[in-house]
Amino acid sequence: MDRHLVISSDCHAGLPPGGYREYLDPQYRDAFDAAMKIQVERTRELEKHFLVGDINAQWRTGNEAALTGAWDHGERIKVLDGDGIAGEVIFPDGITEMNAPPFGAGIGLSPKGADRELQWAGARAHNRWLAEFCQMAPERRAGVAIVPATWDIDEAIREVRWARENGLRSIMIPVIWGDHAPYHHPCYDPLWATCQDLETVVHFHSGPADSEQYFGAWPPNPGEPTLRGAMGIYVSEVCWWVARPLTFLIWGGIFEEHPELRVAITEGTAQWVPSFLQLLDQRASSHPGSSKLGDYTSHLSMKPSEYFARNIRVGASIPRPEVMMRHQIGVASLMWGSDYPHPEGTWPNTAARLADSFVGVPEDEIAAILGGNAVEFYGFDSEKLVSIAAAVGPEKSAFTA
Amino acid sequence: MDRHLVISSDCHAGLPPGGYREYLDPQYRDAFDAAMKIQVERTRELEKHFLVGDINAQWRTGNEAALTGAWDHGERIKVLDGDGIAGEVIFPDGITEMNAPPFGAGIGLSPKGADRELQWAGARAHNRWLAEFCQMAPERRAGVAIVPATWDIDEAIREVRWARENGLRSIMIPVIWGDHAPYHHPCYDPLWATCQDLETVVHFHSGPADSEQYFGAWPPNPGEPTLRGAMGIYVSEVCWWVARPLTFLIWGGIFEEHPELRVAITEGTAQWVPSFLQLLDQRASSHPGSSKLGDYTSHLSMKPSEYFARNIRVGASIPRPEVMMRHQIGVASLMWGSDYPHPEGTWPNTAARLADSFVGVPEDEIAAILGGNAVEFYGFDSEKLVSIAAAVGPEKSAFTA
Repeated sequence: MDRHLVISSDCHAGLPPGGYREYLDPQYRDAFDAAMKIQVERTRELEKHFLVGDINAQWRTGNEAALTGAWDHGERIKVLDGDGIAGEVIFPDGITEMNAPPFGAGIGLSPKGADRELQWAGARAHNRWLAEFCQMAPERRAGVAIVPATWDIDEAIREVRWARENGLRSIMIPVIWGDHAPYHHPCYDPLWATCQDLETVVHFHSGPADSEQYFGAWPPNPGEPTLRGAMGIYVSEVCWWVARPLTFLIWGGIFEEHPELRVAITEGTAQWVPSFLQLLDQRASSHPGSSKLGDYTSHLSMKPSEYFARNIRVGASIPRPEVMMRHQIGVASLMWGSDYPHPEGTWPNTAARLADSFVGVPEDEIAAILGGNAVEFYGFDSEKLVSIAAAVGPEKSAFTA
Repeated sequence: MDRHLVISSDCHAGLPPGGYREYLDPQYRDAFDAAMKIQVERTRELEKHFLVGDINAQWRTGNEAALTGAWDHGERIKVLDGDGIAGEVIFPDGITEMNAPPFGAGIGLSPKGADRELQWAGARAHNRWLAEFCQMAPERRAGVAIVPATWDIDEAIREVRWARENGLRSIMIPVIWGDHAPYHHPCYDPLWATCQDLETVVHFHSGPADSEQYFGAWPPNPGEPTLRGAMGIYVSEVCWWVARPLTFLIWGGIFEEHPELRVAITEGTAQWVPSFLQLLDQRASSHPGSSKLGDYTSHLSMKPSEYFARNIRVGASIPRPEVMMRHQIGVASLMWGSDYPHPEGTWPNTAARLADSFVGVPEDEIAAILGGNAVEFYGFDSEKLVSIAAAVGPEKSAFTA
C-alpha cells in the first residue's frame, strides 16, 4: 500500500443544543430545559474570557456544513475521508462550546461543583447517543463513554459494562477528583479489574485544571476581570493535571495488580513524557536520601518507565518538536490525533500538517504513530481499516525528505 | 588558585527543641510550652510513616558532635571547613525532625491548618536567632528569613525590611498557598517591589506538597495505615509543587514589572527545567489553537525561558544525570547545595561526591555551578570567601577525567 493507515486518537462529537433531551431519562428533562438557558448564558460569558467569539465565528465561516459532522453521520464520513483518516477515537464536546453533554458531563468532567445525579444522567444521555452514532460505522469509530467514576464505584462499573455491551470499548474518567478519593485509593480496584477484564481503555482527556486559582473564580464572575496571566497559567498547567493521575496509578501499584490495564492520556501534549519518566525512575531507584523515607518501592516489580511502556499511551497532536523527541518519548507510546472538529486541530489541513511534522521519519515509525499503535491499543479491525485507508490515506511519498 | 570556591546553596540550621523559647515574644511562650509536647509526639508518629527512626538513629551515630553544627557556631565552621565549603545559604530545620522552628514555621511552611498569629511568632523567633547566628560569620552565612507571606502583605514587607536590617538578605515564602491568593495576584506586588529594592532573594524550598491526598490524611492519623504508594507519589510530586510558583510568577508578569527580582527554587532537583521551559516557551509562542484563547502573551516582552535565565536560579544537589543536562538547564542557572546536616545530602563526603558528579566538566563551568553563580546571586563577598576556599576548597585536580 502506498498510503498510510491513519487513526485519529483524539476526535470529538456531540449533539447540538437541545439534542440530548430525548436521550435523557425522562425525569431529568425538566432540569435539562432549565439548565439549557443557563448553559447558553454561561457559554457566552466564557467566550468573553476564554473562547473568543470572533475567532470562533471566523472558524465556522465556510465550515458550517463540515462542522455538522460533529453529530451527522454522513457529513462526518465525508470529512474524515477528505482529511485522510480511516478510524477515530471519539470524545465528547463536538465544537467545544456548543455541543457539550448536559450537566457538566463533557470534557471538563469533574466532581467539583457538580451534582452527582445530574452529572450521571448527562453522561448516560451522551453515552446512549454515542453508542448509536458509533454503530453507524463501527469499524471506524471507537467511542469513549463518559464515566464520572469518583462518585460511586459500583455505578461506574455498571456503566463500563453497559458501554461494552453497546460497542463502546473505552471510557474517560475525571482528570480531577476534587474532594473525592485519588486514583491510588483501593476503592477503585474493582473498576480497574473490570476495565482490564473487558479490555476497556481508560482515558484522561485534557481540559480540567486548577482554574479558579488561575482566573480568580471559575467560572469567571460576569463583569469581573480575571487575574492577569491566568490563561497562560491555564495552558501551561493543564498538561500537568491531565497526566497527574499516572503518578497515582503507577505508584499505587495499579499496573502491578492489573498488568493488562490500558490507560491513555489525551490532548495533553507528549513533551512531558521524558522528564516525567526520568523523575519517576530516579525516585524508584535507590539514591542518597531515599533510605530515610523507608521502603516505598518494593511493591513494584518494574520501573515506572516500564509500566508506562506496557500500559500507557499518549494521544496527541505531535507537532515537529515532539516528533524529534519520539525516541525519548517512545515510538510505541505515541498515537497521533487530529482533534476534529476543534479549531486547534489539524482538520481540514491534516495531510499538509502531517507531512510538515513527520517529513524524513522512517516509514515504520510513521505507520506506528499515525495508526498502528492505535489499531493495537483499541482493537480496531485493521483489515477493514486498510481498505478504507487505501482510498483516503495520505500518500507515503509525502513524507519523503 | 588550585582549589574551587564552593558555596552550598542549600544548608539548614535550627535550634534544638526548647531553644526557640527565649527568641519568642513573651506572650507566645505558654503556647510554645504546650505545643512542644504535641510537636514531639507528632514527630514520633511521622517517623513511623516518613522519617524512619532506625535510619535516623544510625545516621546520628558517630555524627553526634558534627550534627550540633545545626546550631553551634564553632562546630558548624569545623564541619563546613572539613567538607570543603566556604559559604552557605541557610534554611530552617536543622536535623529535619528535631530542629524545626515553632508553630509550623519551618521548611513545611504553609498556611494550611496553621494559626496565623502563631506561625508569624514562630517565624520571627527563628529569624531573630538566625540573624545572630549569621552575624558570627557574616561573610560565610547567608541566612534565609522565614516569611509566611500569604497571611498579610504588609506584615510580610515589614519582616523583609527587618531581615535586611539584620543582615538576612533572602527570604523563603510558602510553596503552597492553600486558600490564600496565588502568586500572580496583584496583592503581592508591593512584596515583590520591596524584595527587588532591597536586593532580597525570594526562595521556594522543597517540602510541602498535596500530602493529605497521597497519604489519606496529613499528618497521618495515629495507628491508621497510609495509602499504598503514598511516599512514591510524594517524592515525585514534591518537585512539581516547589517549582509551581514560577508558572504563576512568569505568566503573572512579575518579572516583567520587577526586572531585577531574584527567585530561587531549592532542593527540588533541576531535571524538570528543560521540559518546563520548553512547555512555557511553546505556550507563549503563537501556535495552532492559541488564537481561540485570545491574547494572553502581549503583557510579556520576553520569552518565559528568558525570564528564567535572568531572574531565577535553581539550588540543587545536581547528581551526575543533571550535570550531563547542564547546558539544557543553563549552566548559569545552577547552584549546587550540600543539604547539610540532612542525611540525604553530601556531607560528610562532599569532596568525593562532587568529583563523581562533575568529573570531566570544564573548569569554568564547575566554578560557576559550585560557587560563582551563588556569589553573584546572593552578593557574597568573593574576596573573603576566596581566602577561605584557598585553604579548604576541593582541589581542581580532583575533577580531571
